[in-house]
Amino acid sequence: MPKTDFPPKEGLFPVPVVLVSSIDKVTQAANIITIAWCGVVCSAPAMLSVSIRPSRHSHRLIKETGDFVINIPTGTMLKEVDLCGIRSGRDIDKFKACSFTAEPSSKVLSPMIKECPVNIECALKNIISLGAHDMFIGEVQLIHVDNNILVPKDGIDYAKASPIVFNQGEYWSLGKRIGHYGFSAR
Amino acid sequence: MPKTDFPPKEGLFPVPVVLVSSIDKVTQAANIITIAWCGVVCSAPAMLSVSIRPSRHSHRLIKETGDFVINIPTGTMLKEVDLCGIRSGRDIDKFKACSFTAEPSSKVLSPMIKECPVNIECALKNIISLGAHDMFIGEVQLIHVDNNILVPKDGIDYAKASPIVFNQGEYWSLGKRIGHYGFSAR
Repeated sequence: MPKTDFPPKEGLFPVPVVLVSSIDKVTQAANIITIAWCGVVCSAPAMLSVSIRPSRHSHRLIKETGDFVINIPTGTMLKEVDLCGIRSGRDIDKFKACSFTAEPSSKVLSPMIKECPVNIECALKNIISLGAHDMFIGEVQLIHVDNNILVPKDGIDYAKASPIVFNQGEYWSLGKRIGHYGFSAR
Repeated sequence: MPKTDFPPKEGLFPVPVVLVSSIDKVTQAANIITIAWCGVVCSAPAMLSVSIRPSRHSHRLIKETGDFVINIPTGTMLKEVDLCGIRSGRDIDKFKACSFTAEPSSKVLSPMIKECPVNIECALKNIISLGAHDMFIGEVQLIHVDNNILVPKDGIDYAKASPIVFNQGEYWSLGKRIGHYGFSAR
């Protein structure tokens, strides 16, 4: 089948949808921003990137504290996830608006979202200006996983975790497990 | 429910699984590497990142040509996707091993994988060394989308595209569309 050409845009899918939590160093007000422009960038040390527009409230907070937490939401939190992506922390308290609980982290100043089954504490290592977005590179400090989604040998039951998949503006659920890394060698 | 702490690792999920194609500037031999450590890093200009270990064959090829193509595979290509992640282009011709067709790109030297429904031509803008992985930042030059998965108004039918979701070592399929960006404001 022939293909149609499209000019440059963020054509990649599927990508994650995460809630990035941060805190105002002075007022101690916590904030949340929904991010789909994120990913794994290094295995050792384990590093993740989140890209944030300089105009966003979280941009300043993370720059000032030097840390953030990546919280992986479940599909049941979809309305809250969407809200945290379109509203600003300058106007509303997103923890309150979402009925989320800000839980102190172990290694960083930014709080975790208690209701999310996975929280990844990150120390900011670098900010790289790319254009519309600045990329924040965070080194993973500690990961917290809800015992409800854990399976023996430190694995995660992803059907229970039910993360949200983002396809260029559309939120999707996970389907089924179809294989594992390295299966073709067996 | 209480949570269990885990030491730093790449705890993020879901992430994309893509086939990155490249070419040897001298021999003109094309290669493919499967990458899950990738993501969107900037909207304008549209930029994507792929992280590759310096030991990988594709690392040198992309560094030398200064470009690469991100090809989004379908679930039906899962065996090929896994194979391109565990074998080296130094040992085998992955296009041949996967029965894939190397199609010339429009804007870059690296060829596209014809069988993938989406091909994103990228020009290398920066390489950032992070540790085990180097992050290659590519600026999107042109996107090709199979007419079979296109729906009116330049949208994509993601059920037809059936991209592969990667959850920390497990391949998953897509489930269902559960919403769209901004829905909570309506």
